[in-house]
Amino acid sequence: MDKELIEKFVKDDERLDILKRENIHIIQSPSVFSFSLDAVLLADFARLPKKRKATIVDFCSGNGAVAFLLTGKTYNPIIGVEIQKNLFDMAKRTVALNQLENKVSFLNADINAITAYIEPDSVDVITCNPPYFKDLDTSRKNSRDAYTIARHEVFLKLPQLMAKTSQLLKMNGKAYFVHRPDRFFDLLDAMRDNRLAPKKIRFIYPYVGKEANMILVEAIKDGKEDGLKILPPLYIHDDSREYSPEVKAILFGE
Amino acid sequence: MDKELIEKFVKDDERLDILKRENIHIIQSPSVFSFSLDAVLLADFARLPKKRKATIVDFCSGNGAVAFLLTGKTYNPIIGVEIQKNLFDMAKRTVALNQLENKVSFLNADINAITAYIEPDSVDVITCNPPYFKDLDTSRKNSRDAYTIARHEVFLKLPQLMAKTSQLLKMNGKAYFVHRPDRFFDLLDAMRDNRLAPKKIRFIYPYVGKEANMILVEAIKDGKEDGLKILPPLYIHDDSREYSPEVKAILFGE
Repeated sequence: MDKELIEKFVKDDERLDILKRENIHIIQSPSVFSFSLDAVLLADFARLPKKRKATIVDFCSGNGAVAFLLTGKTYNPIIGVEIQKNLFDMAKRTVALNQLENKVSFLNADINAITAYIEPDSVDVITCNPPYFKDLDTSRKNSRDAYTIARHEVFLKLPQLMAKTSQLLKMNGKAYFVHRPDRFFDLLDAMRDNRLAPKKIRFIYPYVGKEANMILVEAIKDGKEDGLKILPPLYIHDDSREYSPEVKAILFGE
Repeated sequence: MDKELIEKFVKDDERLDILKRENIHIIQSPSVFSFSLDAVLLADFARLPKKRKATIVDFCSGNGAVAFLLTGKTYNPIIGVEIQKNLFDMAKRTVALNQLENKVSFLNADINAITAYIEPDSVDVITCNPPYFKDLDTSRKNSRDAYTIARHEVFLKLPQLMAKTSQLLKMNGKAYFVHRPDRFFDLLDAMRDNRLAPKKIRFIYPYVGKEANMILVEAIKDGKEDGLKILPPLYIHDDSREYSPEVKAILFGE
């Protein structure tokens, strides 16, 4: 990576991580919110349409990790949507740094107002790695800072997320979510209340013999609810505490 | 097993299978409905209360497999409930054959009318391996024979099953079900509509890399819905197509 470009686009308190398979240098900042394995697994899980001219949107895009990862799976451009100005700004600078203007763009928008930017019934695929935690226990949060907003349902709760996902998707459009098992019913209820039929679920386990700590769900707008598939489990680590072969393949290519 | 006892209790078209860990000879008949691994895994999954004088009921008990398997886990007697006279009769003869009169009893009853036999709010644990298939496609069933009744929701649909399970259970009583992934939402909806909060779910996979083909669920009457646990997956077979070590341990003891 060109030192001049880095000096131009990367701030002092930020660092660059490399998305290896896509060869993208992504700007991260621990003081805001760094993407984690959740984003990588979500991007890997999503199936993108083969056809040209599909519209693909990533909600709650943060610093853009999922959107950037998806560029490796399609020739269609990806649109990321992020409410936080500083994260949106980081994502935009990652676009410039990697000269990805033709492949990824970002909207600094509240998903609750997304139809001001994207037409209803116009999107083929939506991905989302939403805030995981209920915005209940205000006492335990210092403030509504960037980190809190990314992790807690401050601006976007699951029913709102699913309502907007459903509104934007074409009929039979697909949505992909990653979430936590303890919100499993909240997630499924919000989907099913909004014409999003869960079709495939994959549980992710940190180690063999441990309980699942992540869920991946594929839903189809106006799909039928029968024929749900529970996909094979995904283990993050193997017995020697390294990443499992499957996760290594997802992260680094085969 | 005493030949005289066998001649006395086992009919010509029946066979004896051995529940190895419990050392029980169970009467089976392929012309009616034989228990399968589902029953074994359900019995293994159920956690029975340690206290004396707990009431434990197995719904849809068939030839009694789950009830007999549960005797190995508790000093309390087990009550099986089966609507089909011939299966009920087989279960009773298995009791006699194994002299288990103090440990297991059976009711020949319709679960819809179960409160004529068992008091509401009186049961600590209910297990059930219900009919898996919707009673919709009547064209594909020859008749309402024993096999069809055991496999299809002819006399008992999930909402009825869950209503009666909930009615019989004490507050915080536990229920254990085995079912198929394609009925996952039907199962969860019926539970949640009847004050049964799913707390633990375990998915069962026939082989590594395949989709789940069975689900085990633990629910608690009037429990809270948060804190759902997705337990480690259970594989039926290992790579060499033999039973996995875990299944061998369940079937034959360690």
